[in-house]
Amino acid sequence: MLRIRPATIDDTALLVAMIRELADYEHELDQVTITEGDLRRDGFGDNPQFRALVAECDGQPAGYALFFEYYSTWVGRGLYLEDLFVREEFRGRGIGTALLARVARIAIDEHCCGMHWEVLNWNTKAIEMYKAIGAEFREQWRRVLLQGDALEALARKA
Amino acid sequence: MLRIRPATIDDTALLVAMIRELADYEHELDQVTITEGDLRRDGFGDNPQFRALVAECDGQPAGYALFFEYYSTWVGRGLYLEDLFVREEFRGRGIGTALLARVARIAIDEHCCGMHWEVLNWNTKAIEMYKAIGAEFREQWRRVLLQGDALEALARKA
Repeated sequence: MLRIRPATIDDTALLVAMIRELADYEHELDQVTITEGDLRRDGFGDNPQFRALVAECDGQPAGYALFFEYYSTWVGRGLYLEDLFVREEFRGRGIGTALLARVARIAIDEHCCGMHWEVLNWNTKAIEMYKAIGAEFREQWRRVLLQGDALEALARKA
Repeated sequence: MLRIRPATIDDTALLVAMIRELADYEHELDQVTITEGDLRRDGFGDNPQFRALVAECDGQPAGYALFFEYYSTWVGRGLYLEDLFVREEFRGRGIGTALLARVARIAIDEHCCGMHWEVLNWNTKAIEMYKAIGAEFREQWRRVLLQGDALEALARKA
């Protein structure tokens, strides 16, 4: 039986484990530095930076969704889905769609205008699922990141 | 003389005007529904969803940057730059870089691991500037959006 519930501070070890499984799947595990302490402080303290849902299948942790609010200056408030992940042995049972639907429910309940997320261009199974639910792909936009030395160098110019 | 200052609730009319100028530049003006009231409530109330900076050139409003916090499950807290805009008559004077540097300064001061934003693939001037400051382009990622009827239909499945 599938159950989707909000993550609590007691889930930080589980979340770190699944975040690392997702990063490994995306060939980016070497970039992950997040710790249980980071998640406790940033997600379950006074000023939470994100919310998460955990999917359980017959009591076994099967996947998670992690999201936070964003603001579009075109249309207003929305939810940004940072991570959506289903463990390999639980795939093909609709758990990803169920997690996504729960986030959509929260978006509607909170009067959000939309949900945004990103997908790797080789992840065809995910892309097919997103197309099936009517998601739009905004191909004109390139994603830009500034970090490390480049971020510090720019900050020094301010 | 260039001055960059935090936007206040008295800037909402100016921000809506510049948001619409940016949307027009990006050929997306038809998608903009945001109002001064939305910005007042969402940016300058009890639970601000964004922060903004206004650039003034000899006292004239010349551009703005609008940003909010995001959370990367790989590395933690960051700033997402939703909008960066310089009015046409003020371009070519380094105002965009100055606004970006001020946001980078805030990111460093707030112990953020990075800044993210997006750029239209035909906006070569902006892309060149971003490359010049050492930004990375993450080309493998496709941007996905769920809104309107598709969002509501998915929410009903939860």
